[in-house]
Amino acid sequence: RMLRRVLCTVLFMGALPSLAEASQGHISVVLLGATGDLAKKYLWQGLFQLYMDQVSSGHSFTFHGAALTALEPGQRLMFDVLKKLACPPDESPNRCAVLKDQFLKLSQYHQLKTAENYTVLNREIETLLRQEGLKEAGRIFYFSVPPFAYTEIARHINSSCRPPPGAWLRVVLEKPFGHDLESAQQLAADLTSFFREEEMYRVDHYLGKQAVAHILPFRDQNRQFLDPIWNRHHVERVEIVLKETVDAKGRTSFYEQYGVIRDVLQNHLTEALMFLTMELPANVSRAEEVLQCKLQAFQSLRGLDKNSAVLGQYQAYASQVQEELQKAQDYISTTPTFAGVLIHSDSLRWEGVPFLLTSGKALDERVGYVRVLFKNRAYCTQSETLRDAEHSQCKAKQIIFYIGHGALSTPAVLVSRNLFRPVMPEGSWREAVGQSDLHIFGQPLSDYYVYSPVKERDAYSVLISNIYHGRKDFFITTENLLASWAFWTPLLDSISHQPLRLYPGGVENQHLLDFEMESGEVAFTLAEAVELLNPNRLMPNDYRTIQSKFRQSPLVSAWSEDLISQLASDIEKTASRTVARSGQFHLALSGGSSPVVLFQRLARHHYAFPWKHTHIWLVDERCVPLTDTESNFFSLHNHLLQSVRVPYFNVHPMPVHLNQRLCVEEDRGTELYAKEIVALVANASFDLVLLGVGTDGHTASLFPKSENGLEGAQTVVLTESPVKPHQRMSLSLPLINKARQVFVLVLGKGKHDITILLSRVGHEPRKWPISGVSPSSGQLVWYVDYEALLG
Amino acid sequence: RMLRRVLCTVLFMGALPSLAEASQGHISVVLLGATGDLAKKYLWQGLFQLYMDQVSSGHSFTFHGAALTALEPGQRLMFDVLKKLACPPDESPNRCAVLKDQFLKLSQYHQLKTAENYTVLNREIETLLRQEGLKEAGRIFYFSVPPFAYTEIARHINSSCRPPPGAWLRVVLEKPFGHDLESAQQLAADLTSFFREEEMYRVDHYLGKQAVAHILPFRDQNRQFLDPIWNRHHVERVEIVLKETVDAKGRTSFYEQYGVIRDVLQNHLTEALMFLTMELPANVSRAEEVLQCKLQAFQSLRGLDKNSAVLGQYQAYASQVQEELQKAQDYISTTPTFAGVLIHSDSLRWEGVPFLLTSGKALDERVGYVRVLFKNRAYCTQSETLRDAEHSQCKAKQIIFYIGHGALSTPAVLVSRNLFRPVMPEGSWREAVGQSDLHIFGQPLSDYYVYSPVKERDAYSVLISNIYHGRKDFFITTENLLASWAFWTPLLDSISHQPLRLYPGGVENQHLLDFEMESGEVAFTLAEAVELLNPNRLMPNDYRTIQSKFRQSPLVSAWSEDLISQLASDIEKTASRTVARSGQFHLALSGGSSPVVLFQRLARHHYAFPWKHTHIWLVDERCVPLTDTESNFFSLHNHLLQSVRVPYFNVHPMPVHLNQRLCVEEDRGTELYAKEIVALVANASFDLVLLGVGTDGHTASLFPKSENGLEGAQTVVLTESPVKPHQRMSLSLPLINKARQVFVLVLGKGKHDITILLSRVGHEPRKWPISGVSPSSGQLVWYVDYEALLG
Repeated sequence: RMLRRVLCTVLFMGALPSLAEASQGHISVVLLGATGDLAKKYLWQGLFQLYMDQVSSGHSFTFHGAALTALEPGQRLMFDVLKKLACPPDESPNRCAVLKDQFLKLSQYHQLKTAENYTVLNREIETLLRQEGLKEAGRIFYFSVPPFAYTEIARHINSSCRPPPGAWLRVVLEKPFGHDLESAQQLAADLTSFFREEEMYRVDHYLGKQAVAHILPFRDQNRQFLDPIWNRHHVERVEIVLKETVDAKGRTSFYEQYGVIRDVLQNHLTEALMFLTMELPANVSRAEEVLQCKLQAFQSLRGLDKNSAVLGQYQAYASQVQEELQKAQDYISTTPTFAGVLIHSDSLRWEGVPFLLTSGKALDERVGYVRVLFKNRAYCTQSETLRDAEHSQCKAKQIIFYIGHGALSTPAVLVSRNLFRPVMPEGSWREAVGQSDLHIFGQPLSDYYVYSPVKERDAYSVLISNIYHGRKDFFITTENLLASWAFWTPLLDSISHQPLRLYPGGVENQHLLDFEMESGEVAFTLAEAVELLNPNRLMPNDYRTIQSKFRQSPLVSAWSEDLISQLASDIEKTASRTVARSGQFHLALSGGSSPVVLFQRLARHHYAFPWKHTHIWLVDERCVPLTDTESNFFSLHNHLLQSVRVPYFNVHPMPVHLNQRLCVEEDRGTELYAKEIVALVANASFDLVLLGVGTDGHTASLFPKSENGLEGAQTVVLTESPVKPHQRMSLSLPLINKARQVFVLVLGKGKHDITILLSRVGHEPRKWPISGVSPSSGQLVWYVDYEALLG
Repeated sequence: RMLRRVLCTVLFMGALPSLAEASQGHISVVLLGATGDLAKKYLWQGLFQLYMDQVSSGHSFTFHGAALTALEPGQRLMFDVLKKLACPPDESPNRCAVLKDQFLKLSQYHQLKTAENYTVLNREIETLLRQEGLKEAGRIFYFSVPPFAYTEIARHINSSCRPPPGAWLRVVLEKPFGHDLESAQQLAADLTSFFREEEMYRVDHYLGKQAVAHILPFRDQNRQFLDPIWNRHHVERVEIVLKETVDAKGRTSFYEQYGVIRDVLQNHLTEALMFLTMELPANVSRAEEVLQCKLQAFQSLRGLDKNSAVLGQYQAYASQVQEELQKAQDYISTTPTFAGVLIHSDSLRWEGVPFLLTSGKALDERVGYVRVLFKNRAYCTQSETLRDAEHSQCKAKQIIFYIGHGALSTPAVLVSRNLFRPVMPEGSWREAVGQSDLHIFGQPLSDYYVYSPVKERDAYSVLISNIYHGRKDFFITTENLLASWAFWTPLLDSISHQPLRLYPGGVENQHLLDFEMESGEVAFTLAEAVELLNPNRLMPNDYRTIQSKFRQSPLVSAWSEDLISQLASDIEKTASRTVARSGQFHLALSGGSSPVVLFQRLARHHYAFPWKHTHIWLVDERCVPLTDTESNFFSLHNHLLQSVRVPYFNVHPMPVHLNQRLCVEEDRGTELYAKEIVALVANASFDLVLLGVGTDGHTASLFPKSENGLEGAQTVVLTESPVKPHQRMSLSLPLINKARQVFVLVLGKGKHDITILLSRVGHEPRKWPISGVSPSSGQLVWYVDYEALLG
């Protein structure tokens, strides 16, 4: 109240600093949550920096701190913060002191709690402007408050605090913006009912980090060098990393709800990922063009599942949560504090290049970087000792956007000298020298061109300046935000009950958190400690599979993974033997989900498989186009055929789609397939038929009580499935029984009941078609996993 | 003669060493070229070693040196060599002295020049054996003579020197075995007329190098570790390298005819390549199984062309040749003294993995190695300084067979500690220690498990021992030899007039010989000095191809190879643009011989081609089954489709073979194809149609005066060809003219007349169907090579 009076006095005396020269109009900045942590640490300093930078811009300013606290204690709290504002090193102390004095005079505190408080605030701004004869340029409302308060505040601003026509409104929002796609959509919808898209500035403070903010300009200014190499042919991998040494102590009430993926990966690291992967718009400073390219890049990202990530939690986290949130001793938190995620883009540019996003708390060092590692395609004839960094193509080639901290302890852009000398904007970045003994990513610093900012600026100063300038490309639009949540939410859902690797924290983590990629998935490199402690454990081959009898035929059983690898290798053996004997191998495969793992195993682990001499037939097919994701053939193609070299002529999908229609009897698809079999397969006797079993005892697409296919002369039949799609095409039981070998694969707990039943019943194909499988002169082998066998 | 007498005396006294105890029979070793360089340097020492090793084996030995030199001077020369034989360090000096004395007594010199000389030699061996009452075990003839003498000597041995039935004959042959496929076949045929395959031991002394000889045993004994990683998913690249510091001075008469590829790559490095790439036989010491796997591995190698290699010649070579071979000052040698070759295997195991073979004279160091570098699939969360070699997966993973010399100066096998601790045969290899400051391939020696031979043995000692033991797996069979020549000859032919990069020699070479891979080709990293000096020279694209007009449409012309590469890259550009615009690319391709080269080029050099989004259609087809070698589709499949990843659904062969019969009208194949086009191609307007031209002016399968397809509404038609097979299916002219782009490819002298004619005539499709090609709203481009254009 004292300050109010002072301010008013000053105002009335016409001496309020700068206001008089405001030919460009007046800007009111309202900082909601003016006494909170973020405001204390960064935002007031950023506003002061803005004032120092823009005091001569022609705009006049007032700064309004606001919070729920009552006026007097609030005022006191706020001015305690303002008094501590620092003068930047590049500013003259005298000028800064004068400006700081002015800044304090232009600042006031408001309690903003009720609707009336907002009306009063608005009236005060209007009064000031009228009294000073100032034109209003715009108002900035900075939301540094918990997200649950957003809607309420937004409603008040919209109804009471909008500036008059001609002046702009900018509301600045701090994350979190929801915790999954649905909540983010809800929040976005709420906000959209109060603000227009162009009025909202969602902060991701990483976009204010100088090294991150320079990714797009760097790509733009170095197009000539990057155009030929910024693609999957030249880039080996990309790492986007934010490592912290601190833990979540004191913040678990927030952290326990979010975890590392929501806290860091979904926003900060994803934004960096987008800057790297998006196609470059013609003009990188046009927010709308950048956004379009970014959204397209999101579209190209391959979906994540639980095998895309490794997750950890530092050991002390559990007790911190128990203590801070008053949880019971046996409370188990499933919140990850460490995550490594493997991301692929399916764009033509990036297909196959691994993007590794990693972040965690309680790690061994504090550092952030984006590292693009290029492939080494050179052979250097000269011996290693004679190679020099500038000319040898055999040294690692990298481009690194060093966000900060770590060994360099400054933001920087590093480009390996054997790549190119980058074009950098002269005013804002300069070549750094010195520290030649330092090694960065395996190479001495002298192997790089190193650039650092002329003025190192705090992210919030950069962002506040961008808000002032209306540079929306530094902020997250609604579409951008939702695209990111749409990408991350499936992973978050799938890992919510994933086990986490516990890590001790700091350098003690050793190699516990190292992870590796294999076939598009990631896994920790080291097995869990408990496994390492037991050197006497049996070697896999000793206990992996058991051999026995089932329904009078050989039975192979194991845990599913081992069973699949046994089956795959048995199929390969049969194939090789058959090709050696007869020159070709006729393999009929079933659809469904169980064989998918088998297909993948065959594609990835059986390099000696005689694919060139193998004919692939379908046991059954759904009456859908072959390109439909429901099609058995489509799945077979996806998981196997596209990875191996089966000649086109040897692939025999079922003709369910003739004359642009599905399984119409008069198109005679069954007859056609039967003829094809007779023409190519000796005696119509397949070398190997792979079958599955349904919970109802069906096999192939032969269902209980089927009218076709269980007996009779017809070899290929149309059948009806009790589940959709109902129409099916299938090999008949008599044809299957002509095969030289039949393998039946049964996987999973869900098949336990039918497995038990089958172990007891005899030959009753009309009840359980699978019971009719009994090759007349061939061999039948059952592959049943422990879950199906033992429940 | 004196020696003869001494020998005879000793013999008659029954005191000739060891002969008496020869319960296993007697072995006569005849070394032809006994006083030549190789014999002096290695072979006598190897024979002495054999004698020391096998003196108690139960076999008795005599050693017969032979040459063209007359008896007395020959004897003197030979015994000068024998007197200098060294005692190996691991042999007791006393025993060695006694054995050396015996060895000298068992050795004698023969002049072998005439047929009679051979008869005499044979008689002497027989007499000795009879007199001593010895059973004959076998005879070894070691050919250390120039290749032109092979046939003559072989004839004499075959007719006069064969041992009696029950005893074996082994003839040992030294390279060169021909200088290309044809000469090697000739030589092999000659030899085969005198010797059986099992009698011939072709030496590649690299197979006697301990590190090379251990590749297969290593793979065998470490199957458990290598099985999962010895493939394209884990191996990044393989380098097989033999660097020499010496040059060819004094040997140019040999070298000028052969050059580095025939001297080193075709034999030594290729053998190492085969040991790495072949599938492992069940038993790696069975020569026949190893051979079969090796031959299969040869089959999988992708053919080489001139862009597969970079070639150099050290600067002094030219003057050395001029001097030693008395050539004129302006004589230019095209013999490479340096080569780097990129090899790919198309086996499922190795597809895409680069194998780099490099060798040269006058380089900066002498070293030989086989280096298998594995991919880094790890992300190490711990900072670099905290990583240890055993556990960190982020350090380079390598397996190195170190052949010798270089920094290690001993044969060795090195395995990165983060891979596995290898199983090594205890008796013959031991773990090496020390020299921790040494760096090998970028890593300190302590990062590897290092094994070196317990006894370091010279390659020739190893080989001579293997000849004695009849271990044919250490020698090159005829099939193996011819497979290797069949692989290398096309490259040798294509580079015979390639320019060579001159290099100064030694450390002065700097980065001049570094090279890089790009799209399956290699090129030197640094541009030629002369190129660097002339920045204004035209870039290849400017002069290689000429651009002009033909029949009012754009014409691209060049020599056929350049034309094809231009066409391929234009097709790729169109494809990428089209996919970017519409998500898919519909490409209709013609049959015939001209496109084959194009298909191969697309398959091998266009990795960025968007195959996944490309639909392949046929412009025309012969009415034969698709698997018939006459089928256009078959050829397309062979040369293109089997090498790229076009989804099965996107491949559209013409339905010429329905209901097990060919192009029967009532099967309505044309209608079917037309419907498929309408269903998938927007407006039935192909993105690109590739056509050819016949000498009669036909295009697609539209022949002059054809009743179908030149006009009218039918889009797919059956036609009659004047040549067999007469029946054809073809897209119609109106359909072709709906395409967005049409490229016409015309190659070869044979097309010159029709090309000239077409340049003059107008639109007369009934006379010359190609003249009717005129896209209604698309673009037509002619690709005509210089031979077709200029005759």
